[in-house]
Amino acid sequence: MASVKVFGSPTSTEVARVLACLFEKDVDFQLIRIDSFKGMARKPDYLRLQPTGQALTFEHGSKTLVESREICRYIAEKFADQGNKDLLGKGTLERASIEQWLQTEMQSFDPPTSALVFNLAFAPILELEPDQEAITKSKAKLANLLDVYEQRLEETNYLAGDKFTLADLSHLPNTHYLIADMRCGHLFRSKKRVSNWWDKMSERPSWKKVLELQQQPPPVL
Amino acid sequence: MASVKVFGSPTSTEVARVLACLFEKDVDFQLIRIDSFKGMARKPDYLRLQPTGQALTFEHGSKTLVESREICRYIAEKFADQGNKDLLGKGTLERASIEQWLQTEMQSFDPPTSALVFNLAFAPILELEPDQEAITKSKAKLANLLDVYEQRLEETNYLAGDKFTLADLSHLPNTHYLIADMRCGHLFRSKKRVSNWWDKMSERPSWKKVLELQQQPPPVL
Repeated sequence: MASVKVFGSPTSTEVARVLACLFEKDVDFQLIRIDSFKGMARKPDYLRLQPTGQALTFEHGSKTLVESREICRYIAEKFADQGNKDLLGKGTLERASIEQWLQTEMQSFDPPTSALVFNLAFAPILELEPDQEAITKSKAKLANLLDVYEQRLEETNYLAGDKFTLADLSHLPNTHYLIADMRCGHLFRSKKRVSNWWDKMSERPSWKKVLELQQQPPPVL
Repeated sequence: MASVKVFGSPTSTEVARVLACLFEKDVDFQLIRIDSFKGMARKPDYLRLQPTGQALTFEHGSKTLVESREICRYIAEKFADQGNKDLLGKGTLERASIEQWLQTEMQSFDPPTSALVFNLAFAPILELEPDQEAITKSKAKLANLLDVYEQRLEETNYLAGDKFTLADLSHLPNTHYLIADMRCGHLFRSKKRVSNWWDKMSERPSWKKVLELQQQPPPVL
């Protein structure tokens, strides 16, 4: 079996999404982090994000992918027989529901939450001025969307049904940064079902492993 | 100019030696860390050390090297005109003295201190039983050697003369782990000149930068 390689930093939300999927699927892989130094100064990784989006690269044999959700689908399909077998559902109907919520995540959840993650969590570290207008607009959009999520989660345990799937997994990286933030955590926590949904998801060993990688330096020797 | 690449973890003493040298010489480079996962378990890097010693690889264009001191010499020579120009001395006589102390570090300092670093600092993390006999013998050897260092440092500020050179730099990674350890820190701290020598060396911005890399996860995004 050709080896799986992920190039990127686990603190990147895109990379974190892929790592969570690999851990769920119990896939052997190599994580390759590249830091560039100009003399003693480290070039920030975010420079690599613009404009060519090279913060994440996934390789499996001769296959190369760079979009995190596409990579997650690929992993779930390619390693269908191992690890969590529910990530993409077991039949056409389940798969359709998962795809629908994956689309919702990508088209409706990701734009406001990525704007919030950037402006609230990363801009201060990068010494950039947060865009207050983007923050306000994104919070409003997110609040409306989470009303829809709250309704949905009154009917089912997880977005696409009663099992944790890629549709839920895909929400982990951005929600992780935002739910702990005083300025928008309440958008999630004020909704009982959404709040419970997060608590269940974030307790998964796969996600805890991603957080460990985000926080710890590589091991000794 | 071909780019410089270092493959390895900055917590490795071999890698730390090379990083300190690159920072001293103000060389632009990429640090590439590779972590291998078998499902959710991370394969410890130390497995890669035995028996083929692949914990460190250095590339510069088509040149590939794996021994840290050889790499440091290569960097000091190849980038002679930039950064710290004293690392390998400026004349034959200086270079000879530096080489003599580099040999002492490699042949006499490294064996006992590497044994101590492994048994005191790394074995517990790796859940291995420390080798008490190796610890006792290594401490005795190190104590004798540091008597020689103490004498030498009564004559000169640094091992090879009055300037900080590769001979001193090469001692940084192992000493860092041992001097903070209750069980052998006194071997260094009980000797006034050795203790001062360490304090001066470890305050260098290059070494502080290495420590920062050992302790911090890669930056966000």
